[in-house]
Amino acid sequence: MTVVNSTSEMLKPESVSLHPLGAAAAAVPEMLCIFGTGDLGRSLGLRLLQSGYRVVYGSRRPHSCGPLPQGSQVMSHGAAAQSASLIFICVHREHYGFLETMATHLAGKVLVDLSNNLKKGIHPEPNAVYLQRLVPGAAVVKGLNTLSAWALQNGLLAGKQVYLCGNSAEAKRAVAEMSTKLGLTALDRGSLSAAGELEDFPLQLFPEWSRPLRVAVGLYAWLSASTRGCRPLRVAVGLTAFFFTSLLEMSSTGMLNKTKTSPTESWSPWPTRCFPLCLIMLALCYLPGGIAASLQLYRGTKYRHFPDWLDRWMLYRKQMGLIALGLAFLHVIHTFMTPTRYSVRHTLITLVVDEMNNKTTPFYFDNTEAWGQDSFYALGILGFFLYVLLGLTSLPSVGGSLSWREFNFIQSKLGHLTLFICTAHGYIYGWNTFLRPATYKWYTPPAYMLCLIVPSVVLVLKALVLLPCVDRTLTRIRQGWERNQPTEEIGKVTNL
Amino acid sequence: MTVVNSTSEMLKPESVSLHPLGAAAAAVPEMLCIFGTGDLGRSLGLRLLQSGYRVVYGSRRPHSCGPLPQGSQVMSHGAAAQSASLIFICVHREHYGFLETMATHLAGKVLVDLSNNLKKGIHPEPNAVYLQRLVPGAAVVKGLNTLSAWALQNGLLAGKQVYLCGNSAEAKRAVAEMSTKLGLTALDRGSLSAAGELEDFPLQLFPEWSRPLRVAVGLYAWLSASTRGCRPLRVAVGLTAFFFTSLLEMSSTGMLNKTKTSPTESWSPWPTRCFPLCLIMLALCYLPGGIAASLQLYRGTKYRHFPDWLDRWMLYRKQMGLIALGLAFLHVIHTFMTPTRYSVRHTLITLVVDEMNNKTTPFYFDNTEAWGQDSFYALGILGFFLYVLLGLTSLPSVGGSLSWREFNFIQSKLGHLTLFICTAHGYIYGWNTFLRPATYKWYTPPAYMLCLIVPSVVLVLKALVLLPCVDRTLTRIRQGWERNQPTEEIGKVTNL
Amino acid sequence: MTVVNSTSEMLKPESVSLHPLGAAAAAVPEMLCIFGTGDLGRSLGLRLLQSGYRVVYGSRRPHSCGPLPQGSQVMSHGAAAQSASLIFICVHREHYGFLETMATHLAGKVLVDLSNNLKKGIHPEPNAVYLQRLVPGAAVVKGLNTLSAWALQNGLLAGKQVYLCGNSAEAKRAVAEMSTKLGLTALDRGSLSAAGELEDFPLQLFPEWSRPLRVAVGLYAWLSASTRGCRPLRVAVGLTAFFFTSLLEMSSTGMLNKTKTSPTESWSPWPTRCFPLCLIMLALCYLPGGIAASLQLYRGTKYRHFPDWLDRWMLYRKQMGLIALGLAFLHVIHTFMTPTRYSVRHTLITLVVDEMNNKTTPFYFDNTEAWGQDSFYALGILGFFLYVLLGLTSLPSVGGSLSWREFNFIQSKLGHLTLFICTAHGYIYGWNTFLRPATYKWYTPPAYMLCLIVPSVVLVLKALVLLPCVDRTLTRIRQGWERNQPTEEIGKVTNL
Repeated sequence: MTVVNSTSEMLKPESVSLHPLGAAAAAVPEMLCIFGTGDLGRSLGLRLLQSGYRVVYGSRRPHSCGPLPQGSQVMSHGAAAQSASLIFICVHREHYGFLETMATHLAGKVLVDLSNNLKKGIHPEPNAVYLQRLVPGAAVVKGLNTLSAWALQNGLLAGKQVYLCGNSAEAKRAVAEMSTKLGLTALDRGSLSAAGELEDFPLQLFPEWSRPLRVAVGLYAWLSASTRGCRPLRVAVGLTAFFFTSLLEMSSTGMLNKTKTSPTESWSPWPTRCFPLCLIMLALCYLPGGIAASLQLYRGTKYRHFPDWLDRWMLYRKQMGLIALGLAFLHVIHTFMTPTRYSVRHTLITLVVDEMNNKTTPFYFDNTEAWGQDSFYALGILGFFLYVLLGLTSLPSVGGSLSWREFNFIQSKLGHLTLFICTAHGYIYGWNTFLRPATYKWYTPPAYMLCLIVPSVVLVLKALVLLPCVDRTLTRIRQGWERNQPTEEIGKVTNL
Repeated sequence: MTVVNSTSEMLKPESVSLHPLGAAAAAVPEMLCIFGTGDLGRSLGLRLLQSGYRVVYGSRRPHSCGPLPQGSQVMSHGAAAQSASLIFICVHREHYGFLETMATHLAGKVLVDLSNNLKKGIHPEPNAVYLQRLVPGAAVVKGLNTLSAWALQNGLLAGKQVYLCGNSAEAKRAVAEMSTKLGLTALDRGSLSAAGELEDFPLQLFPEWSRPLRVAVGLYAWLSASTRGCRPLRVAVGLTAFFFTSLLEMSSTGMLNKTKTSPTESWSPWPTRCFPLCLIMLALCYLPGGIAASLQLYRGTKYRHFPDWLDRWMLYRKQMGLIALGLAFLHVIHTFMTPTRYSVRHTLITLVVDEMNNKTTPFYFDNTEAWGQDSFYALGILGFFLYVLLGLTSLPSVGGSLSWREFNFIQSKLGHLTLFICTAHGYIYGWNTFLRPATYKWYTPPAYMLCLIVPSVVLVLKALVLLPCVDRTLTRIRQGWERNQPTEEIGKVTNL
Repeated sequence: MTVVNSTSEMLKPESVSLHPLGAAAAAVPEMLCIFGTGDLGRSLGLRLLQSGYRVVYGSRRPHSCGPLPQGSQVMSHGAAAQSASLIFICVHREHYGFLETMATHLAGKVLVDLSNNLKKGIHPEPNAVYLQRLVPGAAVVKGLNTLSAWALQNGLLAGKQVYLCGNSAEAKRAVAEMSTKLGLTALDRGSLSAAGELEDFPLQLFPEWSRPLRVAVGLYAWLSASTRGCRPLRVAVGLTAFFFTSLLEMSSTGMLNKTKTSPTESWSPWPTRCFPLCLIMLALCYLPGGIAASLQLYRGTKYRHFPDWLDRWMLYRKQMGLIALGLAFLHVIHTFMTPTRYSVRHTLITLVVDEMNNKTTPFYFDNTEAWGQDSFYALGILGFFLYVLLGLTSLPSVGGSLSWREFNFIQSKLGHLTLFICTAHGYIYGWNTFLRPATYKWYTPPAYMLCLIVPSVVLVLKALVLLPCVDRTLTRIRQGWERNQPTEEIGKVTNL
């Protein structure tokens, strides 16, 4: 249209009008057919009409199929199929049978299979493959099945990605073009053999979160086990009694610790355990980066693949960081709640009463204690603040508006600074207990000591990488330099 | 272009070049005309130039119309109109008059009306309809009026949806094509009669929030009325004196409650009232879902429409949930501030002083109290944490990246869990007062009891729906099964 | 395709099929060429394949260039260049030399330069200009260089904006069309002379944040200097010793203030300084709006440009608001932590002990104190709540879903309300110290007084603008009315 328009303008610049350029036929939008008048069919039809298409429904009961979008037609399946080249199949797989009987009507058409299953693996073959087997003459395209009727109706499509697959490149192109008009971005996932994968998309339940969550649960169990009770029973008890322990801890900290510990300590296990877990998870986000840098330095090239476990670990960094942020949030709220707790107030009152009764020990202001505690809090506040900033940039809409260098600055520089501050927060917590022998009386260092090991390793690794000589070598390696490269190759083409 | 390119490549694979495929004319981009050189006109022109169009401005003072985007031309209205087929009208409705005088120049053109009004209903007919009446020979398209000059200038368009309406399908298609090149997604809203609706869009002020907010205000008034003062005056006083009460409460809790209540209670009304309101609003998010499930079970089909009030209620769930989240946030901050309050500290000190003066009652650690309070806090913290998670997924960019099953899992499973935990938090608060007769002395149960009714009903409904036999029937109904369906129909085509 | 399809449907409505309309050649997608098999080249190829293109790689070592995306071919540079009309240059600038040697192969091709530099200004001319000089026969287009390999691989492109520049409009159009198929929105930034600007984009590090951050740091230094120490040394000491001071303050508040101040005050400097800074920054967001309105009123027209400094100031409002929100967050956390601090608890205990020892002063409940403090807290909580709401709407995905009027309502009405509440919070803090002479003993008003000046000015300005007579004039001016306009002009065309 652009071409014709511009040409005509060149020829007769005195007047350019829209009408001459489009033939009469151009005024009639393409007709699309939808089989199925359920929620999805109706929403899809509405959206197609809004995008400028004409829509015809195929129904087994054309005269009693309920309200359809204004402007659409409804016919029998056969009649509807004949009037369009692209047919959306919005019908449950269980009812595909009738399509086989009308295979002749469907020959040469593009069938878009939008169906999903209720569970994974309940059918031997994907729905789209089954459909292609039933109607071999048609070009089946699997796709758009990640769209919900709700999103279609409420216009939440803009910029969304949809996946397509099918054996006919031409059919896929027609569907991709239609998707673009709906405001979607279509991505080709290959032949119809990928249909199973596409049908599993809407059934996914946070697949990228299960592993990091299991790591967090495992670490929690290990921390619980290694900081309480005697050594031989630790791991076994810790892992099996995990849920029991944590439930008990949550609801009955006060009751459990009645006899031995003082009331003030009754609450402490939970937030104290929250923080070590949070710190370890945060450190685990940055550990793979350090390992990768060490590997590249050791190998002297960036062209050799990392081991699989490292690749996978690096993919889970975002999730681990967000879990750690959740734990930090819990830790902070716990800390805020502490002064209102009954046991804390009880201790405070007891302290005063004791103070009054035996006036032998003068009540003085311990300056070192005040200094240490205030630094401890200041670091904690600063660390949490920076951590929330980090978390904000992981929001898709915020992260998407950053340039690559900005994203890198935040996730690497600011991230390591946050880890450093949180680690310092942890060190100060135990600053005067590290050297006391009583701390180690059961040969079990407390949780806040165990949790400092991984962060310290990560920070030492990072500090080493920041040394000028190491940094220079690493930068060269990442730009494509290879230590063991034959001399004549150096200086040749290197790729971005 | 794709076609030609590929073909030529097939024929002479030795060299494929860009030049042969595009005719000379193709190198000249389409010319678009803009009437009006104000902020919007200039920003739109800049954007069109950036998207590869040529732009000509029509102005009443072509030689003194201020700075225009580089690369654009400026002419008199008549000359500008002749050189393009698509004309944007960026002029106030008050000044449309001159368009009537040049109707002959505009015949056969597409006029895009971008105007908005300052208020609703100040003109008898929509601007676009008025324009069409003035220039009957042109094809008027209303649209793009939701774009601000600011968004156009700063490139905030990517993926945004714009609405179009007009009587000429061809003209709408030309505008939609142009919108797509600008990175917008155009949605057809039908004929020019929808223009009024489109012109009201930029004047909307949170239309979907007003009803949920009114529900929240009403509930607050009812809670205020029903938990204070004597019964007959409740509703009347509560509703009329609502603003007065809440303002007083906010600023002068300490002063009001001087005489009768102890100082510690002076603050409590506000956060205590915040929580019941929050809990009821949260429960009201999940109540319509429970009612809908019950209705479907009772009717034995999903094909009968829900009553209107239920449909509307379900549309407001998100807003009610977010209002409840805001209240939860206030409730949590209030709780955190409690220990720093003067009156709380005063009570604490008084307690100790009393303790010291009459040493008859030994100061012991009440274990049940500690147990109850710690459970109370633990549930509150957990509930708030889960609630924040729920709130995060309601951010458009986060929710948009979830699969349907994930969204459902979070909003339904996690949502009911949150409601359960928050309800338990409420039950524990009053655990030892439910059975005390003194609680009911004015025959008015306190707010924290009233607020537990709705959540309990919702949770019981949900528990019933989760019973295996009920759940199975419901799942079948939602897949299209009908209890009263004629037998021969069963097993036929069912729609997605 | 639409045209043919619809026509054929009109002619023979009995059956519409996809096959007749596309020629055989249509089934073969366009071939694109990529020079360079690095991370970016591979990710780009994968993405192009997914979008339905065919991809051929040009490599110096076609047989040993590592794993390439499935479905792509790899050839020598020359052979690859011949088979496509569009060539992506994914090679470091240092290695462009080989392109000069094959200039004859590249004549008439479109070369897309995706390269970036490691730092700004290390080369005399932009990479794309250098490339054009090496291969004068090709049409070089600079663009897509803001995409990272990571984003390409993970499909984070949907709706993203990319910039293009180049001397050939035709070449730019071909690249823009390809970008659209990838889900990107292409913006034309003019001729190749803009290439340097485009190459600097990925190297930007929060350019819009540096000025507001410097303002914040400067204000902090001034506040530190003007509220501590004697007057002559203030500014000098404050600015130079800024980092030293703040570091010390953060970590050693307890130790520093050992002698003169009471322990309770040791902590106060930091949160107290946080709040004034926050309030001033918030007021500075709204000050330029007030100044702009005053200027428009004074000049009687909206058509004269604002001074440059005001324009620039208005561009930084969002960043200043977010910095202020960060400070408010820190201020709030500090306040929550206060009751758990050692020094605060020490003061509390000391108070009780003193109370018990000298029973001369009866311990009464100071009602005014309770009233003032509770109002103070209530306003602070409300202000913070509204501020968080304001911050949420600045998230791109939330702000993008608001209509213009809604955005305006939140940022202007709600913003000024927040400022009002926060200012009231500040006034109440010092309500009983304003009139005490001791406050001014060093002729230096404390920080919380200094910080109230700017907000008060802003609120007075806003109140004046809201006066009906002023408001009416301003609205007319903003609609295009000019006070000094010649009478005959009034009522003519005014632009949106």
